[in-house]
Amino acid sequence: MANHAYVIGIDFGTDSVRSIVVDVKDGKDLASKVVNFRRWKEGKYCDPSKNQFRQHPLDYIEALEQSVNATLASLPEGSGEHVIGIGVDTTGSTPAPVDREGTVLALRDEFKDNPNAMFILWKDHTAVNEAEEINEVARSCGGTDFTKYEGGVYSSEWFWAKILHVLRTDREVGKAAYSWVEHADWVPAILTGNTDPLLLQRNRCAAGHKAMWHREWGGLPPEEFLVKVDPLLKGLRAQLYTDTVTSDKKAGVLTSEWAERLGLKEGTAVSVGAFDAHMGAVGTEVKEKSFVMILGTSACDMAVAPYEIVADKLVGGICGQVDGSIIPGMIGLEAGQSGFGDVYAWFKNILSWPLESLPAENTLIDSEQADALRAEIEGRIIDRLSEEASKLDIDKSLIALDWLNGRRTPYADQKLKGAVAGITLGTTAAKLFRALVESTAYGARAIVERFTEEGIDIEEVVASGGIPKKSPFVMQVLSDVLNMPVKVAESEQAPSLGAAMFAAVAAGAYDSVYEAQKRMGSGFTTTFTPDPLKAKKYDELYRRYKEIGKLLEEQLRQ
Amino acid sequence: MANHAYVIGIDFGTDSVRSIVVDVKDGKDLASKVVNFRRWKEGKYCDPSKNQFRQHPLDYIEALEQSVNATLASLPEGSGEHVIGIGVDTTGSTPAPVDREGTVLALRDEFKDNPNAMFILWKDHTAVNEAEEINEVARSCGGTDFTKYEGGVYSSEWFWAKILHVLRTDREVGKAAYSWVEHADWVPAILTGNTDPLLLQRNRCAAGHKAMWHREWGGLPPEEFLVKVDPLLKGLRAQLYTDTVTSDKKAGVLTSEWAERLGLKEGTAVSVGAFDAHMGAVGTEVKEKSFVMILGTSACDMAVAPYEIVADKLVGGICGQVDGSIIPGMIGLEAGQSGFGDVYAWFKNILSWPLESLPAENTLIDSEQADALRAEIEGRIIDRLSEEASKLDIDKSLIALDWLNGRRTPYADQKLKGAVAGITLGTTAAKLFRALVESTAYGARAIVERFTEEGIDIEEVVASGGIPKKSPFVMQVLSDVLNMPVKVAESEQAPSLGAAMFAAVAAGAYDSVYEAQKRMGSGFTTTFTPDPLKAKKYDELYRRYKEIGKLLEEQLRQ
Repeated sequence: MANHAYVIGIDFGTDSVRSIVVDVKDGKDLASKVVNFRRWKEGKYCDPSKNQFRQHPLDYIEALEQSVNATLASLPEGSGEHVIGIGVDTTGSTPAPVDREGTVLALRDEFKDNPNAMFILWKDHTAVNEAEEINEVARSCGGTDFTKYEGGVYSSEWFWAKILHVLRTDREVGKAAYSWVEHADWVPAILTGNTDPLLLQRNRCAAGHKAMWHREWGGLPPEEFLVKVDPLLKGLRAQLYTDTVTSDKKAGVLTSEWAERLGLKEGTAVSVGAFDAHMGAVGTEVKEKSFVMILGTSACDMAVAPYEIVADKLVGGICGQVDGSIIPGMIGLEAGQSGFGDVYAWFKNILSWPLESLPAENTLIDSEQADALRAEIEGRIIDRLSEEASKLDIDKSLIALDWLNGRRTPYADQKLKGAVAGITLGTTAAKLFRALVESTAYGARAIVERFTEEGIDIEEVVASGGIPKKSPFVMQVLSDVLNMPVKVAESEQAPSLGAAMFAAVAAGAYDSVYEAQKRMGSGFTTTFTPDPLKAKKYDELYRRYKEIGKLLEEQLRQ
Repeated sequence: MANHAYVIGIDFGTDSVRSIVVDVKDGKDLASKVVNFRRWKEGKYCDPSKNQFRQHPLDYIEALEQSVNATLASLPEGSGEHVIGIGVDTTGSTPAPVDREGTVLALRDEFKDNPNAMFILWKDHTAVNEAEEINEVARSCGGTDFTKYEGGVYSSEWFWAKILHVLRTDREVGKAAYSWVEHADWVPAILTGNTDPLLLQRNRCAAGHKAMWHREWGGLPPEEFLVKVDPLLKGLRAQLYTDTVTSDKKAGVLTSEWAERLGLKEGTAVSVGAFDAHMGAVGTEVKEKSFVMILGTSACDMAVAPYEIVADKLVGGICGQVDGSIIPGMIGLEAGQSGFGDVYAWFKNILSWPLESLPAENTLIDSEQADALRAEIEGRIIDRLSEEASKLDIDKSLIALDWLNGRRTPYADQKLKGAVAGITLGTTAAKLFRALVESTAYGARAIVERFTEEGIDIEEVVASGGIPKKSPFVMQVLSDVLNMPVKVAESEQAPSLGAAMFAAVAAGAYDSVYEAQKRMGSGFTTTFTPDPLKAKKYDELYRRYKEIGKLLEEQLRQ
């Protein structure tokens, strides 16, 4: 290995892209820059009232270029010369329609402002009905249930449902779309100049977790199944892919054009992409028996288990069990909650409502001062709520359901909604906040129990993402509710660090992801341990959470 | 009738007392003054976390004297000479322990700061367990169910439950208490100098609706029953009362001492008291087939029905059906919601939370400016919420249960709590507010249906109290949900006007309450009529409200 060998991890999040330059020998983070998606930030192509969230490919390209350049610019000149590999992770399932050449339709003039020609972000829930239909056909068609390795429930957040929704609602896009590409495959494809939809490398993670790809049935679900879901899908399978690749493999090497745009060497290795949560799990040193929670707006949960433990078990209700989707050579198990930090942010927004009109309407201070005051108050809401809530006793009457953004796992159902039960005139804002935090912890526990019920032991939680370091209160509640230790990952950029690890392996610096983890991992900060008394109280409240959920499920779908 | 004959209506509310001077001939409101209860305002003797709400008798006496004097002072000198009668209404059930002379124990030195020696305000819920035990014995004792004319469920807000709770928790007060007196009886008693607990006039309204008094069993429930509930009640029945009086009768005449203190003539007629809601119903011209809702912090609902319609029907789940409790000669039916405006106020308090720390913590404006700003923002919250909410479509997913302060009717259960089901990340503050307003309207509809199911027709709502004129939005939702017209009473002081009507009858100015209503009533302002399309949607949502309530009831008791 060269003395100064660097790798770049590029993490496409919901709002922005982060690039980090990492030292291959010890994983030290040398520089990092975040660049927001410009059009996204302006709210373009989205309609929250319809749960429509789309991203323009130019947002990705521009932000990618800016963030890599800015990161390298903060290092000594010539640092780009030391970069031996690039790894990429993205949100997902985030597919886009492409033409025969692999150009995302929104990059063509006639579709440039058409949201259906763009990437359909993970949290877009426009395809609720399509997901339901896929589930119906999967259960009723008689043969194999092709959702079985994806937890047995297909979600509206996933590949086929989204594709079908666009095919149904936008005939023009449908006609022009030769194939579809996940964001995580598209970025390596453009960087390596291999965008042909029939040839570009498709990552195992997206394929296995979101597209019902499995070796058992020779890849994607058979044509007959897809056509039974909707004849509109006819012919598409043959224009997608049969083989998939794990992310320790090279997708190719950097083209000269991109080498120049990014200030890197032509021929630099680009590893196969994967989803942010999966790479984040690797970045936080995921191993057997640990449950990695990547906690941001939503929660992505990851675990790995040896083949012999999983054997032919099907873990129902999760987002899938896929050979090599996290660590090559192990079964990667994915689960998650559609809303986590978003649940707290929702409550913050509710509490901020009286401040909205402050600048325009108040009669006492000028609008500039009012804006500043509003920002100051809003900026402190979550911290103050956490502080007050942490001092409260556990309220045995107040129980919330965390499905404000639907339920991803266990047993995906995006039609579900949240609830708060047990409100009295004495229920304060801090009590409501505490109940919401507890509800997200109950949601996590329901997932952990799904694993343990199937014999996949979980002994600890590893928490990473934006929330763990910001909110010790949330971590403590999580530990008390789960009754297990919660270790907070040191790295605040676990996905990009994970991507960098994969880049190092793909570039040949390490033989395996294990070795890269061992050398490049950055360890943990705090460990939260459960309070036995609280854990006992929460056992009871968790039972009631499940009971209330069961009672209300039907109503919460309406 | 004298040319200038006046009557005074005195209305003791939760926070204050209002006195009005009214012209007997046309009910014209000549002057009115509100005086707050001083100790109450300081939060004394209360513990909201335990739902303990007590009021000191001196608060009543001082505020009474001040408000009558202030009212008369705003009229030409000598106006007191024209006053021919005084009527009094109070909240209830609001009983206090008295000694053999009828002195409320808190007026004695040794008990002056003991909350158990004071009036136990209607909304005090410390006696939840006692109410439950009364219900158990009532249902299991084999003979007559003594709760049957009180809707079949005894409430913790009522006379016997409260008495028993104090007897159990405070032996000193228990020993010193010879008898117990309702606030509505105690005020006429002191004004007329007849405080002997065995002799003072007990009003039909409080006795029949809250103390299980009925002619069928010769007055209060028999000693055996009471002792079965708890031997602590032994002997008390004989120290209470057997007969009761309707409020069109004189309790007595003003003593010389009180005549002097109030600036009135000795010998002025004082009519028998009653509860505010009942007198409020009279003040708003209650008649057959109208459903009077007195809407403030809670909702008190009143209706009257002829003997022949009620016959021997028992309207289950309400707060009672009592001969003459509203209008002498008709059956008075009472129901209500434990939280109405309080539900909106609760939400306002939640939204005000970020402003709490504004004066102390902000870094931008001084604390005086911050206080003023906070007051300004908070003061506008309900109006702004109403305005925004009124523009929203009906949200078919978001349904709240209005039991934040327990459920008074139908089927009293103070252990119940509120809930909100169907929350999404797109649920705004205005949507939540709308759902809460709708929930209070559903609660009202559940009560109206209880009446109509028993054959007691309701054709219109008459709304009075603080909310109707302030919130056209709430009134429109109420009309749409009930699918019937809602008439808003002109008088904003219906209870005191009702009390004045009773005073006029007791003083001999009119022969009957009907006649007093006809001459002295002040009519209605707006009438809200239902929007048929909305009414249809609400039919469906109301069914879901009931369904969700049924599903969650057990959980909401915990």
